[in-house]
Amino acid sequence: MTQSFFRELMNPRSIAIVGASNNPSKMGTMHALSILKDGFAGKFFAIHPTESKVLGHPAYKSPLDLPETPDLAMFVLPSKHLLPVFEAFGQIGTRYAIVITAGFKEAGADGVRLEEQLKETAKRYGIRFVGPNCMGIVNRDIGLNTSVSPITGRPGPLGLISQSGTYVAQTVDYLQKRGIRLGKAVSLGNEADINIVDVLEYMGEDPGTTAISMYIESIRDVGRFLEVARKITPHKPIVVQYIGGSEAGGRAGLSHTGAMAGKDYLYDGLFRQAGVIRVFSVEGLYGQGWALATQPRIQGNRIAIITNSGGPGSAIADTLDALGCTVPAFSEELQAKIKPLIPPHAPCGNPVDMTFALDMKIMTETIPDLVMNSGEVDGVVMHGAMSTGFMSAVYSHLSDLMPGVTCEEMLKGMIRDVTGSVQIPFKNNMPMTVSAFFDRCDQYTAEYEDNNVPVFDSPEKAARAMAAMVAYQRIQNRAAYELPADLQSTETACRILKEAKKRGQKALDEFSAKQLLGSYGIPVSRERLVHSPAEALDAAVAIGFPVVVKACDPEILHKTEQGLVYLNIRNSDEVLGAYDAIQQSVQRQGRQPVAVLIGEMTAGTREFLAGITWDDQFGHCLAFGVGGIFTEAINDIRYRVVPVSESEAGAMVREIKHPKLLSAFRGMPEVNMGSLSKILSTLSLMPLLHPEIREIDMNPLIVSGAEPVAVDALIVIGT
Amino acid sequence: MTQSFFRELMNPRSIAIVGASNNPSKMGTMHALSILKDGFAGKFFAIHPTESKVLGHPAYKSPLDLPETPDLAMFVLPSKHLLPVFEAFGQIGTRYAIVITAGFKEAGADGVRLEEQLKETAKRYGIRFVGPNCMGIVNRDIGLNTSVSPITGRPGPLGLISQSGTYVAQTVDYLQKRGIRLGKAVSLGNEADINIVDVLEYMGEDPGTTAISMYIESIRDVGRFLEVARKITPHKPIVVQYIGGSEAGGRAGLSHTGAMAGKDYLYDGLFRQAGVIRVFSVEGLYGQGWALATQPRIQGNRIAIITNSGGPGSAIADTLDALGCTVPAFSEELQAKIKPLIPPHAPCGNPVDMTFALDMKIMTETIPDLVMNSGEVDGVVMHGAMSTGFMSAVYSHLSDLMPGVTCEEMLKGMIRDVTGSVQIPFKNNMPMTVSAFFDRCDQYTAEYEDNNVPVFDSPEKAARAMAAMVAYQRIQNRAAYELPADLQSTETACRILKEAKKRGQKALDEFSAKQLLGSYGIPVSRERLVHSPAEALDAAVAIGFPVVVKACDPEILHKTEQGLVYLNIRNSDEVLGAYDAIQQSVQRQGRQPVAVLIGEMTAGTREFLAGITWDDQFGHCLAFGVGGIFTEAINDIRYRVVPVSESEAGAMVREIKHPKLLSAFRGMPEVNMGSLSKILSTLSLMPLLHPEIREIDMNPLIVSGAEPVAVDALIVIGT
Repeated sequence: MTQSFFRELMNPRSIAIVGASNNPSKMGTMHALSILKDGFAGKFFAIHPTESKVLGHPAYKSPLDLPETPDLAMFVLPSKHLLPVFEAFGQIGTRYAIVITAGFKEAGADGVRLEEQLKETAKRYGIRFVGPNCMGIVNRDIGLNTSVSPITGRPGPLGLISQSGTYVAQTVDYLQKRGIRLGKAVSLGNEADINIVDVLEYMGEDPGTTAISMYIESIRDVGRFLEVARKITPHKPIVVQYIGGSEAGGRAGLSHTGAMAGKDYLYDGLFRQAGVIRVFSVEGLYGQGWALATQPRIQGNRIAIITNSGGPGSAIADTLDALGCTVPAFSEELQAKIKPLIPPHAPCGNPVDMTFALDMKIMTETIPDLVMNSGEVDGVVMHGAMSTGFMSAVYSHLSDLMPGVTCEEMLKGMIRDVTGSVQIPFKNNMPMTVSAFFDRCDQYTAEYEDNNVPVFDSPEKAARAMAAMVAYQRIQNRAAYELPADLQSTETACRILKEAKKRGQKALDEFSAKQLLGSYGIPVSRERLVHSPAEALDAAVAIGFPVVVKACDPEILHKTEQGLVYLNIRNSDEVLGAYDAIQQSVQRQGRQPVAVLIGEMTAGTREFLAGITWDDQFGHCLAFGVGGIFTEAINDIRYRVVPVSESEAGAMVREIKHPKLLSAFRGMPEVNMGSLSKILSTLSLMPLLHPEIREIDMNPLIVSGAEPVAVDALIVIGT
Repeated sequence: MTQSFFRELMNPRSIAIVGASNNPSKMGTMHALSILKDGFAGKFFAIHPTESKVLGHPAYKSPLDLPETPDLAMFVLPSKHLLPVFEAFGQIGTRYAIVITAGFKEAGADGVRLEEQLKETAKRYGIRFVGPNCMGIVNRDIGLNTSVSPITGRPGPLGLISQSGTYVAQTVDYLQKRGIRLGKAVSLGNEADINIVDVLEYMGEDPGTTAISMYIESIRDVGRFLEVARKITPHKPIVVQYIGGSEAGGRAGLSHTGAMAGKDYLYDGLFRQAGVIRVFSVEGLYGQGWALATQPRIQGNRIAIITNSGGPGSAIADTLDALGCTVPAFSEELQAKIKPLIPPHAPCGNPVDMTFALDMKIMTETIPDLVMNSGEVDGVVMHGAMSTGFMSAVYSHLSDLMPGVTCEEMLKGMIRDVTGSVQIPFKNNMPMTVSAFFDRCDQYTAEYEDNNVPVFDSPEKAARAMAAMVAYQRIQNRAAYELPADLQSTETACRILKEAKKRGQKALDEFSAKQLLGSYGIPVSRERLVHSPAEALDAAVAIGFPVVVKACDPEILHKTEQGLVYLNIRNSDEVLGAYDAIQQSVQRQGRQPVAVLIGEMTAGTREFLAGITWDDQFGHCLAFGVGGIFTEAINDIRYRVVPVSESEAGAMVREIKHPKLLSAFRGMPEVNMGSLSKILSTLSLMPLLHPEIREIDMNPLIVSGAEPVAVDALIVIGT
């Protein structure tokens, strides 16, 4: 165990609350009632200025009056009154706190100051706390609920970490009606002390939590998030909804918990790097999280569909197909086993369509058992298991034909032992998701849900949850994380950077940049730096025609746009012409004559880019994608936090939207992925070896034959 | 009105049913009960071999025994018994039928034969019918429900057309619990007679239907679908879920209603062409359809968000942003009006975040009114309106503090007059969607739903429904559909095709293909066809270096791959070399010397493709997208059914995934959209002017400066 303080906070033996009273319309009272009524067996104390009893328990004027030191203090009083009482808890030795109170960093300059004071006080007394501006924590292991909403019923294995209190406090009814059960939940608020990574680490280690759902608006410590999530995802799935990528979403988030939203593409790269499954709705957050928390791990992507209707069956098939799963046609042998069980003309080739046949035992037990034991599939999506829900919907029509039978009696008569059906996935150790248009009014929906088989209210959602399991299997099958190969800084690189800094350069010239990169084994185009027409001619002959002729100066950054690059120069006359044109052009700009690069003409029609970017929140990130003149128009770039190992770089490269560009086509060979991964991994180490490097831009990285070669490079030096 | 027979079928004055009995477990009985119990005021007859009364109504042995001719006959008996009784209805003059019975085309060769016999019988007697293998029709105007599920409650303005019976019959409970009310619904089954376009035409004309949702697995008459949908969408929204694009989806669909699934990209183009909004889930089909059916038309894409919590507010903002809506920051003026209404530090800049303030009148009435009247937005998405739902969720905790007050009493005491809230969108003539984690257990959810304000169970869905309205506004704002400009066939084109056919060619050679296209004003590269080295030299000089040298023969289709194309030829020696190399190459293949094309070298780095494809279901389609060597790797092509007007072509072109390629970037000008649209519209007319043309492939269509020029062209002649 690397994490213990947050586990202690989640398991207090005694709690004191400030801000609860006997007035049911006060938030503090509602929080207190949750602590008192949902099963917490520890001690409870209330701090109240006037009341002697709060909610039937003795109340104390000050923490200093308490008969003992509570493990956890909880604050629901106005922010202006918070500090003194918070400090008093420090004085009596309370080590953990939850600050529900809002009005801090999210509320302007005064709030920022108050939050600083709160942090300072906490630090002084060694208090670790959640919040401020949060909705509390839930730990069903000990019946602890500090939110405003009652949380009862059987606990479940899903853990929730949320930067919005709503998703802990306002969705209780929603989750209950969908059979989704949380075991642990934490509303983070402003994260003045305990932050999202602390809680993630705890949930990762918590044995009762089998999957973690996270609602995220901002991650402040990107590096630690990556480190912690990377340790968890090989054995426990993490589902993330990240919000804030849009300008308005960011504006909303900033005022919400005072956190800055970041660039969506950086977050997207981070989540992929960490092996986190990203969803784009709160419904996916809960639903896919629940499926991952409850179902046996899937072993492949071959899915069977069992349905009582063609439409939903087709919808499931289409959705699975779009998400990288297959719906294989069953073998003749398997079909022959299924055929006698379903109506004569009903399809049995996958989907199995029962049509409107209502023998539920066959549909929910016999056929799933056959299919799961066939060795032909890895998971099952089912639509149409129903009994009491459908019958209660049609009762009003049938009642005349069943005189004296009430709806309740009819439904009672239909209740069956469905143990065999709900155990199917666990008995066969194979995941199943269910689609049903009837909610818990139907016995099947209710019993599936109560036995940890996830039920969704549409075929597409049941398919998406199955696809999430396949996505997680791919994450588990990734090569184990490893540090990038060790690399020593080269003398060449150190010298180039030292000289450039001495000269006060903000960037290296192209020749130096390529020399630097080349010293680490990154392939760059062959070239010579020349300072006269005669040198230019010599260089061109030595390199061999055709050549490229370009201006080379650390202060000239956009050479192509300024007409300072001449491609495909075929003979001596053209070399001299290009050299002359470049010098005339810089002269017109009022500059001194510049050095000129004579380089080989790298043949290759595929142009990528590779680089290092800088972001205030993410630090240095590695970028790879479609480059050349189509960089912006195609906009197909992936990011990773540095450093990146070769195997990680290989995965990153295959994630681009147009991965076919890397494969063999139109007579071009497949790109050498080994070379490419090595280039990217090496590149990702540059900012670690040379912290003065702020950005690197190799664009284009031309694929010549199968080999990527940097034909242009820019290195920006940081301040 | 262009459509009357289906309107008559939907409005029978009398119905006879075959297959109903007094046994409640029979499907026929359930269909009959729906007719009898859901408000249909017309006459009802049962045909039964033995019973004298069915469900309290006199039963007859044969249609020939009926006291009068029913308008509509309905069949729920086994398929082998169908034909004689169907024919008997023909004999007594019944003109409309619904065949619920399955076991036809979807059930193999015997079924196909039976369906042919059914069609023949119907034709002989002039019977128009829905089905077979369907779930019936619903027309709430006259209380008519022929499905198996009770459909009661107030009718709504949404029309549903479905190729799956499930979405008419099994979702009654689902829709009711979501407040979605259908007015008309038709389950199509195998479409042996009445097809999806007939029903669409009817719904388009039906004044009570304000939006149409369609579940589609296959459209047999693509041309008529386009014609009919195109007439409807300018004034009534159509939402479509198309299923069958995947191989498994197609397999499921084929066995479902015997229909062949088609290529997803052709359907996608068809829907865009028709102005139909495509969704990818049944939930979207119902939910977005319902929003479009109920809400005032939106006038722009500026959306306000009003929420009681930051998380859902941010989620709504992000989702809207991703779907092409904006969430503009409010003016200082508007913020100043809102500020006093919400807690001191709560954000009011859009999203307006009430925080956990529970003054529902301010949230649901005062602020929406202010925002809607500001002129700053075009629609509102709201999250967090709640009262009784939340209170009933927390009652168990509060009950001790309210001794003697039952939950029901507490909730009753909370019921408010919310008329002002639910009228907001209609009063202000501006659409609103609502997100709520409480279902109809909450007064707000229930009353919103009952008053035609759509409520969704997640912030993202409420945002998506708003985005669907914005999408529909864009459809309404499109240029009115017009026929392509009139075009006469050219003598050149007729001559080229005639000669090619005379010679038995399956394709035109490149030179002829370009001559043909050029005769219609499509820009093609300048070139000459030559038959000797001397002619080649003359041509190159006349055209001007650099030139392209290629083999030109109708039987050589993949010239580049065979090394028969030489680009960028700069002088006479190179011309002769290339000419010679081509002839040697074809000689090695055992061919006679070929004609050679000498063409100008078209400068331009942007390569598109334009063409005409052939599909057995869709016929000729126009294609446009990213071309050149990246055609398959980038895979960015759009399709339209021919012919296509210039304004339609312009819209199609802007739909590609990488539209920035058409704009100005990296020193290249914006592509001349007028020229491009004209080329595409002209191209789309080729198969109409020359039906013998099966396919055309102009790839690449190089953008030279701003002008697209075809530098290669292939025309395949049909059989």
